[in-house]
Amino acid sequence: MLTPDQRDRLEVVLVAPRNPLNIGAVARAMANFGFSRLSVVSPYEAHWREARSAVGAPELLQNARETGTLAQAVANCTFVAGTGTRTYRKPEQPVFLLPEGGPILARQLAGGHRVALVFGPEKHGLTRDDLSSCHAFVEIPTDPRQPSMNLGQAVAVCLYEVAHGVQGSREQRAREQGTGEPASNAGSLDRLGSLIEETMLAAGYSPRAMQAANRHDLRVLLRRLGPSALDTRRMLGLFRRILHRLQDPSVGGRSR
Amino acid sequence: MLTPDQRDRLEVVLVAPRNPLNIGAVARAMANFGFSRLSVVSPYEAHWREARSAVGAPELLQNARETGTLAQAVANCTFVAGTGTRTYRKPEQPVFLLPEGGPILARQLAGGHRVALVFGPEKHGLTRDDLSSCHAFVEIPTDPRQPSMNLGQAVAVCLYEVAHGVQGSREQRAREQGTGEPASNAGSLDRLGSLIEETMLAAGYSPRAMQAANRHDLRVLLRRLGPSALDTRRMLGLFRRILHRLQDPSVGGRSR
Repeated sequence: MLTPDQRDRLEVVLVAPRNPLNIGAVARAMANFGFSRLSVVSPYEAHWREARSAVGAPELLQNARETGTLAQAVANCTFVAGTGTRTYRKPEQPVFLLPEGGPILARQLAGGHRVALVFGPEKHGLTRDDLSSCHAFVEIPTDPRQPSMNLGQAVAVCLYEVAHGVQGSREQRAREQGTGEPASNAGSLDRLGSLIEETMLAAGYSPRAMQAANRHDLRVLLRRLGPSALDTRRMLGLFRRILHRLQDPSVGGRSR
Repeated sequence: MLTPDQRDRLEVVLVAPRNPLNIGAVARAMANFGFSRLSVVSPYEAHWREARSAVGAPELLQNARETGTLAQAVANCTFVAGTGTRTYRKPEQPVFLLPEGGPILARQLAGGHRVALVFGPEKHGLTRDDLSSCHAFVEIPTDPRQPSMNLGQAVAVCLYEVAHGVQGSREQRAREQGTGEPASNAGSLDRLGSLIEETMLAAGYSPRAMQAANRHDLRVLLRRLGPSALDTRRMLGLFRRILHRLQDPSVGGRSR
């Protein structure tokens, strides 16, 4: 069981939710399992207003944060897990079934990390672009004949598993603990990605037409590598220097 | 994971459900987790008709059994588990929290027993009399400030746990070990390290006196990150290009 402090480090993120009843059901499931931080990314405004003003809407719905992009919503999280089924997509990220993924998230929270659990729109779920902001993909194991869950029910099942799933094997725990260095948050990974992208252009590494594809690949790559906060700061320093030199070759080189 | 035959031995029983949307949500959760046997005890007739005739109502709702009493609904089951919270009642039956209760039910199903999982009406849950038809009481562990779950969500969480509570298959564990891409060999990591080192010097990122320390840090960093063979080839390509540009700024830049 997670402590209230540990639960407060989980951000539940809904991307473009549509049905106000579903939004209300998400809020209720969060309250049932003791989670309180909700972010909503570019919701349909009328439905969002309706959900918030519903009779008996829990306080966490009043306090929910609204952002324009998923990147903004998860910027201060060090681990971001997208959810869904693999029926209609093949994620590039490592995939965990929920019975194992829940405990992984729980241990991240217990270890002091800020974690985001991201749910896509009711119709089609998270896009490939959304997933490029995620470190992992968590799949609720469902029947192949009816794989797609209702949003409120999917959130309930995931939060149940995160709140109570702190079992799990010793090997798993060892694997996840890694070096113990603090992980990079999503915002600094995005800054590094942008800087490398700019460097690629400045170095003539790839044509501008490839920029969107490179950006996507970089996001996925940086999350797979999982650099520590210190690693990321170092790489930011190096690429800043490189970019500076590429843009102004007269600046001092090999000496110093 | 339970087999389809084992799942077919689970009877989901709703006692006097009221809200047709909840009944629909129960049916959807059952389909999601591969269960198909639903019984409804003395439902509110108008709402029950509405739920059954809803657009897209799954087949299991059409085939649901209707009984007058809970005793009739569970008559051919060898193990009957009531569900709810203990906030408003103190069951006389043995109480299991769902993370323990789910696997218990799963093992009963796997052992050839017919099992019923019983959910009370939305307003007040199962009565003491209802519980007298039960062998055990399964409680979903919820936050004491908001203990009462929505019916559709409670069913989803319970069925998830019953379907997957027999934890940790070998395939699952194997799948997590990563994306399955071949890892970089030590030689290519060292080539990448040297190239980055050279780039650091060419960019004037750090003085030559730091070269040995940087080399060490790079080796450690690259091994910790554990890039795949493809990742490493890409990074080699990028840094080769950068180095080339730093050493000869006249080579074509942003165009191409």
